[in-house]
Amino acid sequence: MNEKELLHNAPIGVFDSGVGGLTVAREIMRQLPNERIVYFGDTARVPYGSKSPETLTRYSRQIVRFLQTQQVKAIVIACNSASACALEVLEEETALPIIDVVRPGAKTALDTTRNGKIGVIATEATISSGIYKRYIEESDRSVSVISKACPLFVPLVEEGLWEDPVTDEIARRYLSELIDSGIDTLILGCTHYPLIRSTVGRIMGEKVCLVNPAYETARALKRLLEEKGLESEKRPELGTELYRFFVSDAAEKFQRFANSILSYGILSAKVINIEDY
Amino acid sequence: MNEKELLHNAPIGVFDSGVGGLTVAREIMRQLPNERIVYFGDTARVPYGSKSPETLTRYSRQIVRFLQTQQVKAIVIACNSASACALEVLEEETALPIIDVVRPGAKTALDTTRNGKIGVIATEATISSGIYKRYIEESDRSVSVISKACPLFVPLVEEGLWEDPVTDEIARRYLSELIDSGIDTLILGCTHYPLIRSTVGRIMGEKVCLVNPAYETARALKRLLEEKGLESEKRPELGTELYRFFVSDAAEKFQRFANSILSYGILSAKVINIEDY
Repeated sequence: MNEKELLHNAPIGVFDSGVGGLTVAREIMRQLPNERIVYFGDTARVPYGSKSPETLTRYSRQIVRFLQTQQVKAIVIACNSASACALEVLEEETALPIIDVVRPGAKTALDTTRNGKIGVIATEATISSGIYKRYIEESDRSVSVISKACPLFVPLVEEGLWEDPVTDEIARRYLSELIDSGIDTLILGCTHYPLIRSTVGRIMGEKVCLVNPAYETARALKRLLEEKGLESEKRPELGTELYRFFVSDAAEKFQRFANSILSYGILSAKVINIEDY
Repeated sequence: MNEKELLHNAPIGVFDSGVGGLTVAREIMRQLPNERIVYFGDTARVPYGSKSPETLTRYSRQIVRFLQTQQVKAIVIACNSASACALEVLEEETALPIIDVVRPGAKTALDTTRNGKIGVIATEATISSGIYKRYIEESDRSVSVISKACPLFVPLVEEGLWEDPVTDEIARRYLSELIDSGIDTLILGCTHYPLIRSTVGRIMGEKVCLVNPAYETARALKRLLEEKGLESEKRPELGTELYRFFVSDAAEKFQRFANSILSYGILSAKVINIEDY
């Protein structure tokens, strides 16, 4: 295999604080079936949504260094909190092309809204960064953004309460001011949230479109690979390891959760010490 | 000041994954008003309750190394998950006297029960370790222990829902099998849980005694200091810094939470990079 083929066949590095980014990985698997993926979930330091920008930047840098040891050809930050806090620094410091989940989500919401009122639900870290608001309002000053941090959604999803009266009650509290504000588009600004999409959709009502950035992120990745001439031209041969999973802790728990999200059965997730990178 | 006085006046090192251990620090402040405290909350890697024994041991080692740089004379592991997973290793590796929260809680429960049925509620890490069950059943084979992991309690406490219908509903689900089992004593096996003591107490009913290991931990510390001749003989002078707080992330959020728990106003919490230790 020559150097060019090696580069084409190199995997995409996808990372998240834990399991949430698997909703993005799943979308990449669907839309780019020829691409190999190396996924890293930072399960030893999860969650990211309640931590500071400085800490999330330090963690993201370590993960990018690890992914580089896996010879990835591009990186997807499949975590809104890390995208919000670390994207600019990573883009400055890293030669690899980087796709985040925030810009694609913001773009889709702008294309979707008709009344110019967009809601964003996300973690505290993402909302405090103000990044969705900034991207959207810079692109179109006539659009207004209403943001709401929903810190209990991640633990509720991780506890498996995807359809549950408690999740309903918490969602009603978090979403009431968004309903009152008259938004017609709502960004699911945390990669865990697509898993409670039906609860959120039911409470917001049929007239509000839900935007899942995962779909648009995979499309943005596809465009990027084509632009840079980096796409894998054929599906890796049968028997080749298509997807590899690494975590910083508790591989078995990760595997169980991953198998409930992905149709592809995860053979194994390997634990690494991310603090070494 | 001579060497002996220096040792007497040295602070107690207290650590936890974040803010929960403040319920233990508060009890030490009450029962041992002459003692200085250096508190460390691992807010960059919180929570501990969902992580593996290997990871919690690595984190605890780093924290003990940090506390040693603060010249502490004894260490209190004010976190059940870290006590459950790392105590034995830390005792082997560290020359300093160490107090954990599990053994004192188990002892109190044994002294309290009359029907020989003790319940334990705690994080997944603590329950999986089986440590309360082991301590109690080794001390008295006629006593049986019924354990239940309650993973949503910590996020509910951190979200401030100490008295709330949602916390009630989740508590009813977690506690129903403990009620059915006929226990007369329930250990609050996570340092966050004393903050929802009234909810748990109401659901369990008046006949069940709730054991808060914080009280007994402070007593055990007092006995240990006396045995080793390490107690501070007089209250540090006015103007001396009695309590110092360190965290690995988000000092402001820690301060806000701490001020809602402690009567003593925290002047400031300092952020350190715990991965350097």
